[in-house]
Amino acid sequence: MTTTNPSQPVLVDGQWITEDTSGVFSSKDPSTLEAIPLSFPVSSWSTCDRVLEAAHRAFQISRNLEPAKIAAFLEDYATRIHEDREELVAIAHRETALPKSPRLMDVELPRTVNQLKVAAQAVRDQSWQMPVIDRKANIRSCYIPLGPVAVFGPNNFPFAFNGISGGDFAAAIAAGNPVIAKANSSHPATSQRFGQLVAKSMQATGMPSGLVQLIYRTSHEDGERLVADPRLGAVGYTGARGAGLQLKAVADRVGKPFYAELSSVNPVVILPGALDQRGDSLVDEYVTSGLMGAGQFCTNPGLLLMVQGPKTDAFIQGVVSKYTQTPAGTLLSESVEKSLVKSLSVLTDAGAQCLTGGSKLLGSRCAVANTVLRITGGQFLKDPHVFQTEAFGNAVLIAVCDSVEQIVRVIESLEGNLTGCIYSDTQGSDDGHYPQVADALQHRVGRLLNDKMPTGVAVSPAMNHGGPYPATSHPGFTAVGIPASMLRFAKLTCYDAVRQSRLPSVLRDTNPTGKTYRCIDGVWTLD
Amino acid sequence: MTTTNPSQPVLVDGQWITEDTSGVFSSKDPSTLEAIPLSFPVSSWSTCDRVLEAAHRAFQISRNLEPAKIAAFLEDYATRIHEDREELVAIAHRETALPKSPRLMDVELPRTVNQLKVAAQAVRDQSWQMPVIDRKANIRSCYIPLGPVAVFGPNNFPFAFNGISGGDFAAAIAAGNPVIAKANSSHPATSQRFGQLVAKSMQATGMPSGLVQLIYRTSHEDGERLVADPRLGAVGYTGARGAGLQLKAVADRVGKPFYAELSSVNPVVILPGALDQRGDSLVDEYVTSGLMGAGQFCTNPGLLLMVQGPKTDAFIQGVVSKYTQTPAGTLLSESVEKSLVKSLSVLTDAGAQCLTGGSKLLGSRCAVANTVLRITGGQFLKDPHVFQTEAFGNAVLIAVCDSVEQIVRVIESLEGNLTGCIYSDTQGSDDGHYPQVADALQHRVGRLLNDKMPTGVAVSPAMNHGGPYPATSHPGFTAVGIPASMLRFAKLTCYDAVRQSRLPSVLRDTNPTGKTYRCIDGVWTLD
Repeated sequence: MTTTNPSQPVLVDGQWITEDTSGVFSSKDPSTLEAIPLSFPVSSWSTCDRVLEAAHRAFQISRNLEPAKIAAFLEDYATRIHEDREELVAIAHRETALPKSPRLMDVELPRTVNQLKVAAQAVRDQSWQMPVIDRKANIRSCYIPLGPVAVFGPNNFPFAFNGISGGDFAAAIAAGNPVIAKANSSHPATSQRFGQLVAKSMQATGMPSGLVQLIYRTSHEDGERLVADPRLGAVGYTGARGAGLQLKAVADRVGKPFYAELSSVNPVVILPGALDQRGDSLVDEYVTSGLMGAGQFCTNPGLLLMVQGPKTDAFIQGVVSKYTQTPAGTLLSESVEKSLVKSLSVLTDAGAQCLTGGSKLLGSRCAVANTVLRITGGQFLKDPHVFQTEAFGNAVLIAVCDSVEQIVRVIESLEGNLTGCIYSDTQGSDDGHYPQVADALQHRVGRLLNDKMPTGVAVSPAMNHGGPYPATSHPGFTAVGIPASMLRFAKLTCYDAVRQSRLPSVLRDTNPTGKTYRCIDGVWTLD
Repeated sequence: MTTTNPSQPVLVDGQWITEDTSGVFSSKDPSTLEAIPLSFPVSSWSTCDRVLEAAHRAFQISRNLEPAKIAAFLEDYATRIHEDREELVAIAHRETALPKSPRLMDVELPRTVNQLKVAAQAVRDQSWQMPVIDRKANIRSCYIPLGPVAVFGPNNFPFAFNGISGGDFAAAIAAGNPVIAKANSSHPATSQRFGQLVAKSMQATGMPSGLVQLIYRTSHEDGERLVADPRLGAVGYTGARGAGLQLKAVADRVGKPFYAELSSVNPVVILPGALDQRGDSLVDEYVTSGLMGAGQFCTNPGLLLMVQGPKTDAFIQGVVSKYTQTPAGTLLSESVEKSLVKSLSVLTDAGAQCLTGGSKLLGSRCAVANTVLRITGGQFLKDPHVFQTEAFGNAVLIAVCDSVEQIVRVIESLEGNLTGCIYSDTQGSDDGHYPQVADALQHRVGRLLNDKMPTGVAVSPAMNHGGPYPATSHPGFTAVGIPASMLRFAKLTCYDAVRQSRLPSVLRDTNPTGKTYRCIDGVWTLD
């Protein structure tokens, strides 16, 4: 539009605005390191301010919208994403190098569409508001929207966790809040494509123009200012721990809910009986999960705990062979590659033995050799902080312990994690050990699995994609699993002696939909 | 026990331990300013460390206790409190000057006993764990205990919010966590009496010895170290904003849940029609609520918003007359008195007109004259931060606005509050104004009331004693209302493909009690 400033426009209050900005950036194709010829703006504070103002105005409307209207918007958007899938997948594949199949086209895109539809259903039935009615006292409570939500999406799910299309987006919108999406810098063009679709959906379904807005990047200073701004109600952040903690500190200072998913090594315990019973198949299972998506999952099984025994070395040799033979996947960006190499250095400098891999691959793509590191349980216990360094990508640390008791001590030295897995003999030989291992592990993870790898996070109302700090910033909430994930972006509100006609529809004497679960005088009912 | 150190013992791991401490303090009878002849210790870090270690060990046991055993402990303790009521009331009356009746004996003590019994019932039926079961995916989630909870109780409820007997205590224990109670410095002897009762209950019902511990005071440095310690799972804090925010900052840095209730001015809006309809009775209602307990309630209606009109000055004159004629209550401590005088200075320095009261009463008790301050809505809007200064005690600020629209702008300038009240004409003349006032107010308060004063916080499952920052530190939780208040001290935990026999009882196929509400495949049921 202008000759001095060829950057792509941002989506502000329903309009695509070309910014007069000093800074621009571009994404690269990680499989070739060629720049993708689109310049995206580093937005100025003046743009952030306009975005906040529009979101604030939109919230005055969105918090009182009919549930059916919000649901219609989410469904319209889901349909547009599905219809645009060829283009979305092509752009995302170029920006992330994630495979089209199996992954972007057949797994992540359908999941994204499904999440939006499930969210729409949750809006329609309104049970997510958890209405509680005490008829005798005439006190009634439910969750209501919290305010505009800034969503910072991660690099590793360009669709399913994108700030403008993913889980946090769906949860925030479904709860009645505007979203300010901050695109991940590694896939701005993918985010832009979503922005084009969402703008059409907003218009088609009569949403307030500031309901969904999109910016690509800000200075650190402006990012912090945006998080602290009183017009913003909450933040959803998935990404690197350092940047996340900086923003969290800002939010904490002003008492603002900040839901962060930061890092996790996802310990997997293989008990001796399981190894004895089915060591070979466990090698396959573990390697498949560990190398899936070049290991770039928040639930990647990055720390394996096992006991030294007759079959332990053979198991490890099996994993090493497969890690050595399998071609290394392309990483999402140079930044991921650099960070992985750095983490591997930290681990080897601390004494981890590198069994295979350990360094960047030569050539013009982002890639590190598939890596297996080994330490003893004793080493881990001497330096648990360092040996919990997340090596985000295709690398695993195996800690071989003296005994199951030592495994328990290792678990007790762990920070919070998203997941923890325990493999045990199906015939019962591990049953004596299981309780103490599980008791220690379940208090340090959001999700405990039996005989199952942690990658794959089902969209189920019973899912918890969360966990104690620093896996996430609050152990009581999940980022996946509707309707529970919506409660992050809602406030509990009580209505005391408020007249019937003035109550939110879910709190009136009559069930508003016939399908809204409410707890009335201690009884959960559809009445 | 020792001649050099005559301080009272602390309750550590089931034992009353006399500390070798350098610092001691005593409480005073606020009605005479005479010191109560008992010295309580400022605990050293070494004591804090022992307490944390004992709590940590107790948690290994408490998290796996049968619900019936925890319930029996809570019920035993409730019974002992009831039986000891004469002594408890006598001690608390002396330390706080709160009336025996109506208040300590007939209101607060029964409430405290009732809270413990309601908590016991919640433990027994286990619905508080919010079990969610997805049978097809075999994914199941529920809340489980979080870890030892430090409870810092406030000065104004020596029973019902005491760290060793009150709402946070009941919620934390009921959820399966040990409690480290930090007595409020203004009523250590009351807390000690509870400690004696709880120690007997723990022993009688076979609880782990570190389940409930009691310390009286620490240095600021040790208090922060205790909050940051990894053996501590969460904190419940009710009290002054400054001290609370300092501890919150420490907890935030280590990602620990910190539930604080900090301050609130509890705006009350009287719409013109209500004033016209029943101005005289509103004077009575307002004054009764405002002066109850010498105004020392977190829900004290400290900010009154009304429109200048024909009956406004008469209403205010009515309030002023009653505030002037009613004897000023005794405040809880010299510190409350000092803080109230300071807040009144802040408000008058900013331009508030003092209609009655405004200064400390002469004489040897803690008391400030009942105070009414007046400003205009315009003044408020020029300096909303200062005019939201909480004047904790028997003082009220009345902001007379030009119009209901100006009231809405004042509300929009408010920080988070625990409560907000709207009085309107019962014949409908205010109905045009109500929606915009309520819409603005409900997003800034935890509890919205109609034609009812905010003092009085019923123990109802639908109650929300919470609110946006800085009323509390998280808008999604309540400190009153079992079972909801228990969720603050629990973590969401998901069990993915975990074998039946290894699941928590609430997640197995069979309902463990026949009375546990569970959401199975989207249906809330007792099946």
